[in-house]
Amino acid sequence: MTKRVTVSTSDRSAFVDITDHAVRLIAESGVREGSCLIYSPHTTCGVTINENADPDVKVDLLTGLDSIAPWENRYRHAEGNSAAHIKAGLMGFSTEIPVADGRLLLGTWQSIYLCEFDGPRRRTVVLQVREF
Amino acid sequence: MTKRVTVSTSDRSAFVDITDHAVRLIAESGVREGSCLIYSPHTTCGVTINENADPDVKVDLLTGLDSIAPWENRYRHAEGNSAAHIKAGLMGFSTEIPVADGRLLLGTWQSIYLCEFDGPRRRTVVLQVREF
Amino acid sequence: MTKRVTVSTSDRSAFVDITDHAVRLIAESGVREGSCLIYSPHTTCGVTINENADPDVKVDLLTGLDSIAPWENRYRHAEGNSAAHIKAGLMGFSTEIPVADGRLLLGTWQSIYLCEFDGPRRRTVVLQVREF
Repeated sequence: MTKRVTVSTSDRSAFVDITDHAVRLIAESGVREGSCLIYSPHTTCGVTINENADPDVKVDLLTGLDSIAPWENRYRHAEGNSAAHIKAGLMGFSTEIPVADGRLLLGTWQSIYLCEFDGPRRRTVVLQVREF
Repeated sequence: MTKRVTVSTSDRSAFVDITDHAVRLIAESGVREGSCLIYSPHTTCGVTINENADPDVKVDLLTGLDSIAPWENRYRHAEGNSAAHIKAGLMGFSTEIPVADGRLLLGTWQSIYLCEFDGPRRRTVVLQVREF
Repeated sequence: MTKRVTVSTSDRSAFVDITDHAVRLIAESGVREGSCLIYSPHTTCGVTINENADPDVKVDLLTGLDSIAPWENRYRHAEGNSAAHIKAGLMGFSTEIPVADGRLLLGTWQSIYLCEFDGPRRRTVVLQVREF
């Protein structure tokens, strides 16, 4: 079962919690044991998992990534968003969460995030639920 | 076939080889062609693959990651472990290895590692073997 | 369906587009809904996805990764290629792309890249197409 969802981002850089889309798709699919793949079909926007409790964690992740790949750094790419490509590559474009007993095996503090690095934009995310 | 294993870590940062758990699960499952997903349900502890021959590679990886995301860096998150969240995000929370002819297709020098960045702790890892 | 392909790299660091191997394997397999796993069985060479339009993006990615993990940095590993291990770990050793209606759901600007960080060499990549 493969589904596309649209997510709007409101800043140049933002972590947007998309966990509910995956939770709903698992419920709809009726899959008991399997996994859920979350895939970003973009090049300046990735996906990751991280803490959903203290919003400062997201702020620190974005700040940390900005230190790792600063927006201005004598890049050659004419569009000027090379830092966004680097940060998306560091986070990765897919993540996969196991499903057992009909539910996602996310840890207590985990949520799934779309990682916007060149927004604000409307982004597409592909979710695929699989049964094994 | 989905299994949880517990792994104890002995330092704040450590790479713990968990390959044997995956090898045993493949054998138990009898799967011939498929894959093994290794999933960390944590937010300050990821999973990766790297060299298992010279232990200095692990030391250099940890030192390299400390330079990339220093422990002290004016973070806002009150728990003080933002660097651990960043490093876990950089390594990722899952890795998947193909299985063919009943064995994991790890390269000669590859092992699977739990990446502890806020230990020492007892951690859970989820392993899922799938047949295709 | 699991296949190994050989890829030659021509520099110490290089992003080599391997998308066509995956596209051909999907066609050969006849899979309509599933996914394609791309796996690097190496420790100084990973896989990622990124932009295929402007070649300067690849140059900026390599330059960015060199700043993140400089080749010389008082590493202990005697082979002297610790930066390559770190960069491969940051990119990751696998990526998975969903397949629907018999085609890879890569975004318009996405290609799949082998990430060489300790070349030039002949590298192996494992591709696995799965049906769900």
